[in-house]
Amino acid sequence: MSTPLPTLQDCELLDQHDPLRTLRDQFDLPSGVIYLDGNSLGVLPRATPARVAHTLTHEWGQDLIRSWNSAGWFSLPHRVGDKIARLIGAQAGEVVAADSTSINLYKVLAAALHIAAADAPHRKTILSERSNFPTDLYIAQALCQERGYALKLVEPEDIAAALQGDVAVLMLTHVNYRTGAMHDMAALSAQARAQGTLSVWDLAHSAGAVPVDLHAAGADFAVGCGYKYLNGGPGAPAFVWVRPQHTDRFWQPLSGWWGHAAPFDFTPDYQPAAGITRFQCGTQPILSLVALDCGLDSVLAADALGGMAALRRKSLALTGLFMQLVRARLHGYGLGLATPEQESRRGSQVSLTRTEGAYAIVQALIARGVIGDFRAGDGAAHPDILRFGLTPLYIGYADVWNAVEQLRQVMDSGEWRDSRFARRNAVT
Amino acid sequence: MSTPLPTLQDCELLDQHDPLRTLRDQFDLPSGVIYLDGNSLGVLPRATPARVAHTLTHEWGQDLIRSWNSAGWFSLPHRVGDKIARLIGAQAGEVVAADSTSINLYKVLAAALHIAAADAPHRKTILSERSNFPTDLYIAQALCQERGYALKLVEPEDIAAALQGDVAVLMLTHVNYRTGAMHDMAALSAQARAQGTLSVWDLAHSAGAVPVDLHAAGADFAVGCGYKYLNGGPGAPAFVWVRPQHTDRFWQPLSGWWGHAAPFDFTPDYQPAAGITRFQCGTQPILSLVALDCGLDSVLAADALGGMAALRRKSLALTGLFMQLVRARLHGYGLGLATPEQESRRGSQVSLTRTEGAYAIVQALIARGVIGDFRAGDGAAHPDILRFGLTPLYIGYADVWNAVEQLRQVMDSGEWRDSRFARRNAVT
Repeated sequence: MSTPLPTLQDCELLDQHDPLRTLRDQFDLPSGVIYLDGNSLGVLPRATPARVAHTLTHEWGQDLIRSWNSAGWFSLPHRVGDKIARLIGAQAGEVVAADSTSINLYKVLAAALHIAAADAPHRKTILSERSNFPTDLYIAQALCQERGYALKLVEPEDIAAALQGDVAVLMLTHVNYRTGAMHDMAALSAQARAQGTLSVWDLAHSAGAVPVDLHAAGADFAVGCGYKYLNGGPGAPAFVWVRPQHTDRFWQPLSGWWGHAAPFDFTPDYQPAAGITRFQCGTQPILSLVALDCGLDSVLAADALGGMAALRRKSLALTGLFMQLVRARLHGYGLGLATPEQESRRGSQVSLTRTEGAYAIVQALIARGVIGDFRAGDGAAHPDILRFGLTPLYIGYADVWNAVEQLRQVMDSGEWRDSRFARRNAVT
Repeated sequence: MSTPLPTLQDCELLDQHDPLRTLRDQFDLPSGVIYLDGNSLGVLPRATPARVAHTLTHEWGQDLIRSWNSAGWFSLPHRVGDKIARLIGAQAGEVVAADSTSINLYKVLAAALHIAAADAPHRKTILSERSNFPTDLYIAQALCQERGYALKLVEPEDIAAALQGDVAVLMLTHVNYRTGAMHDMAALSAQARAQGTLSVWDLAHSAGAVPVDLHAAGADFAVGCGYKYLNGGPGAPAFVWVRPQHTDRFWQPLSGWWGHAAPFDFTPDYQPAAGITRFQCGTQPILSLVALDCGLDSVLAADALGGMAALRRKSLALTGLFMQLVRARLHGYGLGLATPEQESRRGSQVSLTRTEGAYAIVQALIARGVIGDFRAGDGAAHPDILRFGLTPLYIGYADVWNAVEQLRQVMDSGEWRDSRFARRNAVT
C-alpha cells in the first residue's frame, strides 16, 4: 500500500478541514448513530418539519382548497422538478416530480417503445442488466409481455457487446443498487444513439450522489428517486425527464388529467399538454412533495461550496478511504469488495461481499449504531452484499474510520453469530 | 311547499340537537368560513399535525430506515386500506391505499379488459357517462387506443339502455362530480353482471360520503380518492379494490416491486403477490399516507354514533335543507338545481346551474367566506355549475342557512358583476 493508513486522528483532522463540513448542520442526525444508509433513505433536514407543519396547519388547515393556487401546490411538481434538473444536467421545465420511480419508468418505457415501434419496428428487444434494481425489470417484463418485446438481461461487462441492431431500448440504472458500480452513461448512450437504440436511465442512486449530465450524455429518458440522496423522506415522489424532442411524440399511457393541456376545462377528450407536463397523471401527494422540496434544498445548499463537483470529490475520498481501511484492517475476515476500484466507475457507496453471515453481520453492526444494509445475492455470480452509503452531505471521514472499526470488532468478536442477529423476514 | 321554511333559529336548534355535533370538534376549521368544498378537499383533522410531526421527527428523523419495520410503514397501505374497506362494503385485506385515483383506475381497467378479452373477446366497448370525471375518461381513452376498444359515452339516463352485449366494461363514477347525482350501483352492477359485463366504479365522491356496499352490489372493481370526504389532505393517496375472485387472474401492468410476492428477495423475475397486494406498484409517500390514516380516523369516529347510516341521514337532511332554501329564497335569480330531488339519487353535495356568471358568483361567495367551487359546463346539456359539498362530519344546519343567505345577498346586490370576480385561469 503506497498511501500510509489513516488513523482516527488523521480522519478527525480531515473533517476539521472539510470545506463541506457545515452542510451537515442542515440535518437532525440521531445521536450515537453512524448512518450509512442514505442510499436507501436519506436523512431528515432540520427545515422539513416546520415547512410541512406550515403546509398542514396554514396552507391546508386555514386556506384549504385555495392553496392549490395561493400556495402553488399545483405547480409544485414543476418547481421541484426544476430543482432536480440542476442536479442531472437537464434544463428548467424538463423535469417533473411525481408518482413513484416504478410508475415513471412505465411511462417512459412505454413512450420509448412507442417511438421505437414507429422508427425501427423490426427491433424487438429491451436490453438491461441482470442485477438492475428488480422493480425496473418487473416493469419492463410486463410491458414486454403486453407488447411483444423480449427483455434481454446480461452482466454489466457484456452490455456494450449486446447492444446490437435488435435492441429497441437500452434500459439501465446508472449506479447499481447492489455494488455501487457506475455505468459510463455518455459512452453507452452514444453507442445506443449511433445505432438507433433509445436509452432509458434510472438515476435512483445517482441524483444528488454523482454528477449527471443527461443532455451532454445524449440520453433519451430518465427517472429517479426522491427519498435516497435527495433527502425527500420515506416514499417521497420520484421524478421523470424526457429529452424535449421526444415529449410530444406520444401520449404516455397514464393519461390522467394533470397531463392534460387544460385540466380545469374538464373537457371529455384527452389533449395532452406540451412537454414534460404530459408525463404527469393524477394529483400528487403535497405533504410528501413539500418534504422533497426541502430535501432538494439541502442538496442544493452545496452550490455555494462547489456544488456536485465538490460533493463528488468528497464522496470519492470517503468511499476511497472506506475501501482502503477495509483492505488493510479487515484483511482475512472473508470480506470482498464489490465496488469498483476505478473512481470513474464508482457511485457513492461501498459494498462488501461475504459468503456467510452477511445479514447477521449487518444486524450486529446496526446494534452497535452503524447503520448499513443487507442485499441478498443469488449465488456465486451475485453474492450477498453488505451495503454502506457514504453521503458527503452529512458523513465525515471519522465516521468512516469508526464504521470500519466497528465492523472489525464485529468480525473479531464473532458476535454476529448470536441468534438475535439471525435472518428474519426483514423489509429493508 | 308543504314543509314550513326553516329559519336560522330553527337551524341553530337542529345543530344543538344534532347527535353528530361532537364530530365537528375533530377539526381545525378556519374562523369566519363556511367550508362547502369538502367534496374537493376535505378539512384538516386536529390529530393530523402531531401524527405527521411524529412520523417526521421520530420515525424518519431518529429511527430512519428501521421505521419501514418498526413503525409499520411497509404495511401502511394495507392498514389504511382496511379502514377504507369498512366504508365501502369490502372485507379487510381487500383494499390498498396507493398512488392516485387515475393510476388505480388504469390498473383496474387494464385488469378488466384483460379478463374481458379472455372471457368475452368479441366485446370491444367500454361504456361510461359523458360527464364522468374527465381523468377517468382520459385513462379509458388511452387504454382503448392502445388495445383496440371503443369508449362509448352516453347521458346518465341512457346507461341502462346502452348496456348491451358489446360492452366489455361498464365504467362509472358512482356520484357525479358536477351534479352530485348518484347512480344505482346495485342495479347497474347486477344488470352488467347478468349479461357478462364487468363493472368498474370510481368512488371518489362516495367513500365517506354515502353508504357503499361493493360486495352486496356485485361490483367487480373500484377505485377512489383519499383527499375528499376521507380528509386525507392535498393529494392524499387513492385506493383500489378488486373483487377477490378477479385479483389473481392478471398481472396489472404497473408491475412494480411492491406488488411482488417477495419484494425483498430482489429476484429478477416478477412473481405477483396474491390478492390485492399485486395492485401495489412502487414505494408510497408515507407522510401523505399517515395523514390519510388520520383522515380516516376522523370519518370512522362516527361509528360510535351510528356510522355511515347516521352520516347519511344528516347528509340528506343538509342537502335537502339547502335545496329547500334555494327554491324558496333564491326564486327568480336564474339558479337551477342540478342535484336530484330523489334522495336515493343524491350524493352529499348540491349543485346549482346558471347560464351567466357562475364563476363570478362563486368568487363573490368566497369573498364573503362561503367556499364552494365552480365547474365549467359545455353548453345547454351541461351548463356551468356552482358546487356545494355538505359534509355532515363538520357542516351544520345553520351553516347551510347562512350559506344560502350569503348567496341571496350576492345575487341581490349584483356584487358578483364586479371585475375582481371575473374568470381567470384558476386551478380548482
